[in-house]
Amino acid sequence: MFNDFKLTEGRPIYIQLKDYLKRMITNGHLLEHQKLPSTREFSLLSSISRNTVLTAYTDLEQEGLIYAVKGKGHFVSHVEIFNSQSIQLNWTEKINEQTFLAEKMDLMKHGLVWKKGMISFTSIAPDEKLFDVENFKRAFLNRMSLEGDIVLNYGYAKGYKPLIEYLLHYMEIKGVDTRNKDILITNGFTEGLDLLLSSLNKKNGRLICENPTHHSALKLFQLHGFEIDGIEMENDGVNVKKLEKSLSEKEYDFAYLIPSYHNPTGIVTSSEKRKKIMDLFSTYQLPIIEDGFNEELRYSGSHLAPLAAFGGLGNNVIYISSFSKILFPGLRVGWILADKELIYYLESMKRARTIHTSTLDQAVLYQYLNDGYFEKYIKKAKAVYKKKYELAVHYCKQYIPCKRITGDGGLHLFIELNNNIDAQKLLEACYPKSVVFSLGHVFYTDNNGKHTLRLGFSRLHENEIVEGIKIIGNTLKTNFGG
Amino acid sequence: MFNDFKLTEGRPIYIQLKDYLKRMITNGHLLEHQKLPSTREFSLLSSISRNTVLTAYTDLEQEGLIYAVKGKGHFVSHVEIFNSQSIQLNWTEKINEQTFLAEKMDLMKHGLVWKKGMISFTSIAPDEKLFDVENFKRAFLNRMSLEGDIVLNYGYAKGYKPLIEYLLHYMEIKGVDTRNKDILITNGFTEGLDLLLSSLNKKNGRLICENPTHHSALKLFQLHGFEIDGIEMENDGVNVKKLEKSLSEKEYDFAYLIPSYHNPTGIVTSSEKRKKIMDLFSTYQLPIIEDGFNEELRYSGSHLAPLAAFGGLGNNVIYISSFSKILFPGLRVGWILADKELIYYLESMKRARTIHTSTLDQAVLYQYLNDGYFEKYIKKAKAVYKKKYELAVHYCKQYIPCKRITGDGGLHLFIELNNNIDAQKLLEACYPKSVVFSLGHVFYTDNNGKHTLRLGFSRLHENEIVEGIKIIGNTLKTNFGG
Repeated sequence: MFNDFKLTEGRPIYIQLKDYLKRMITNGHLLEHQKLPSTREFSLLSSISRNTVLTAYTDLEQEGLIYAVKGKGHFVSHVEIFNSQSIQLNWTEKINEQTFLAEKMDLMKHGLVWKKGMISFTSIAPDEKLFDVENFKRAFLNRMSLEGDIVLNYGYAKGYKPLIEYLLHYMEIKGVDTRNKDILITNGFTEGLDLLLSSLNKKNGRLICENPTHHSALKLFQLHGFEIDGIEMENDGVNVKKLEKSLSEKEYDFAYLIPSYHNPTGIVTSSEKRKKIMDLFSTYQLPIIEDGFNEELRYSGSHLAPLAAFGGLGNNVIYISSFSKILFPGLRVGWILADKELIYYLESMKRARTIHTSTLDQAVLYQYLNDGYFEKYIKKAKAVYKKKYELAVHYCKQYIPCKRITGDGGLHLFIELNNNIDAQKLLEACYPKSVVFSLGHVFYTDNNGKHTLRLGFSRLHENEIVEGIKIIGNTLKTNFGG
Repeated sequence: MFNDFKLTEGRPIYIQLKDYLKRMITNGHLLEHQKLPSTREFSLLSSISRNTVLTAYTDLEQEGLIYAVKGKGHFVSHVEIFNSQSIQLNWTEKINEQTFLAEKMDLMKHGLVWKKGMISFTSIAPDEKLFDVENFKRAFLNRMSLEGDIVLNYGYAKGYKPLIEYLLHYMEIKGVDTRNKDILITNGFTEGLDLLLSSLNKKNGRLICENPTHHSALKLFQLHGFEIDGIEMENDGVNVKKLEKSLSEKEYDFAYLIPSYHNPTGIVTSSEKRKKIMDLFSTYQLPIIEDGFNEELRYSGSHLAPLAAFGGLGNNVIYISSFSKILFPGLRVGWILADKELIYYLESMKRARTIHTSTLDQAVLYQYLNDGYFEKYIKKAKAVYKKKYELAVHYCKQYIPCKRITGDGGLHLFIELNNNIDAQKLLEACYPKSVVFSLGHVFYTDNNGKHTLRLGFSRLHENEIVEGIKIIGNTLKTNFGG
């Protein structure tokens, strides 16, 4: 008895003892009215001080799990022992089609398994080695000392007010006219998009977007039952002629566009095209969901305004973004900037579904941004990523024979292999050589892209980037005569 | 020019200057090729050091917003000025029925407005004065020093592993057999319920629950299009006979139950009833969604196991809970404990919809729990809330003439006034006397409850509780002859 009780580091001992005994009682290993060892006996049996045992016993008594009899010791109280008549339901029968689809499209659950030591080009998350943990701690302590109790209690569905104001100003600096607009804070970009899709009616049940496009968005569009028309990408953004043709032929509910460092092609839509796109959607009176993805990561070149800025006082652009992509993905904070009335309704949907976004995340992020740490961080991060980007471009051009490489910056490149080469087969050939990358076809709205792949380089060392690209190139040449 | 530039406290000056100039450029107040004041001139015009001005100019140059001409100074670059041809869409035409319903059921947007200085019995959130901010900071710093970079980068949809393991153990201590079960971390209870409702098929499109019940759950059931059958509450839990009758007459997809400190009635379902309920659902082979609401807040009495424990090795109970209700609501962390296979699918839905819950929230909560701070906090909190509870019961009994008062502990009481008294009218009469409370009818599944109200006392001072109850009681007597 009691010899399976093992202490672990870092947790108060009286709690460990209490938990242990509680579990013995609730699972029936200790029976009703059974006598517990005296505190002295328990202390002798174990290496625990008598006082600590006493604290545990007192707590258990207060919680009604044991009772004391004066002069006799402690005994186990009456605790329900549970019926063993256990029901076994078949849960897969109870799950709906969308959920099976979510599982089917869950990239984390399918495909080749990454192993430690591999060179993985699959991630486009920021490199945690760049994280500015010290200033983040500073921002946390600053905020907590200002209003720790507020940060830890319920907040508002719309978001943490100082952060909303900061972001409104931030969008104004990008050239957005915010007078008739408002902001809703969400748990990252993905919740923002999901909330929006849950709130719009499906008059036509159809949307238009770039092809290929962001996989998580594609998944959400499918989960929400939309028909998806993808328009091919040119080197300066979506093919506007084809976009116009589609708009003139079919009725759409909205467009979804990623103007900067488009995922997966890495293409930045030119200023001229941004204008043309806005004019086109003005003609057709259609909303645009603009994905602000990695807009902050411009390494060089002239300023480029988001579509939301080109829209002026108009209200057809819904801008969704997040700092998570480049700053701290572990914090789930994104925002929707859109027409005031739309935000008013989205706020109620947000409250209904998740109450609000973590006030802690929002408050610390606000402090970090406001104190200017983000500016410093982004400068440092840009310098590092720019170098990785240039290295990746250089070695891809040298080693990977292909039809097209795109990527105007950002954290990834997109490669179209020659048409007869299957990227899946290339991946299978690279895998034993410890190199993996993302297959491009998962980003396509149709069944194309079998010969494409995405290389994310943000989290790799420079020498890994070089080595990995060489391995892919050599495999192409050796196995596919590329 | 530039005389509307105002500095605010706490943000680096070069960033404020940069932001200011950037905004002047993007909104067209500074024109292409316009010359900026020299750094010396700007420094003289303002109270900003020349070096600071230079830093701002250098940043703007790097971002492509201004250019330098040697010996001549800095000039504004070409920046697109946006078309004023602004589209005005009518967004209310584009919003679906569910969203209007979410707005309609949004209690924060309707009803009487709380004003500062009022005695408000509407909240059942924890009292932030009890928050243990110092130990929370300690937990944060501990976790950050252990793995700050991991905490800040992407996590897993399923949740932060140490927290999942902690919670599995936590549920085992409550008597739950976790062998065939698993845990998914969610953004609080509400997201957990919403995820689940989004994932289950609606074979019968009908559910059964206590009447009245938790308003946020009721709202989600309606948003998901379920027909809701509510079963009346007795003093020891739901009326089992009526429950049985309904189960025998109609087909349900599942039940939703709150066995502890039921919201809004405050009733704790007795051990005997818990058993009966489990037997009944075993007979009908039906799932139960168990809301673990405030289970930790037991002030006295014997141990009461959750339904999930009564289920043994069975898999029909889906237990959803959160520490937010009593610990830190600002942190959005809840969990679903359920059948392993169900969790596997819910995980994909979670990933599709919000990627994952804030790693920061999860990691700090884990550390706080593991270090034993929660145990200490809950003892202190229980002592304070117990006193408030006893005070509220005592004064309600003395001052409020009514049919029934329920509430076996927790943070609120529920009052059924005599049938002829409308709680809405009582509220309107109390409002000018600076007392507000929650109307009970919003918790009802049918159109009943017009004569009921909920009194949340957690955040009120003891003297406010006494005073507020006296005012309600006197108003009842004076205006309604109660």
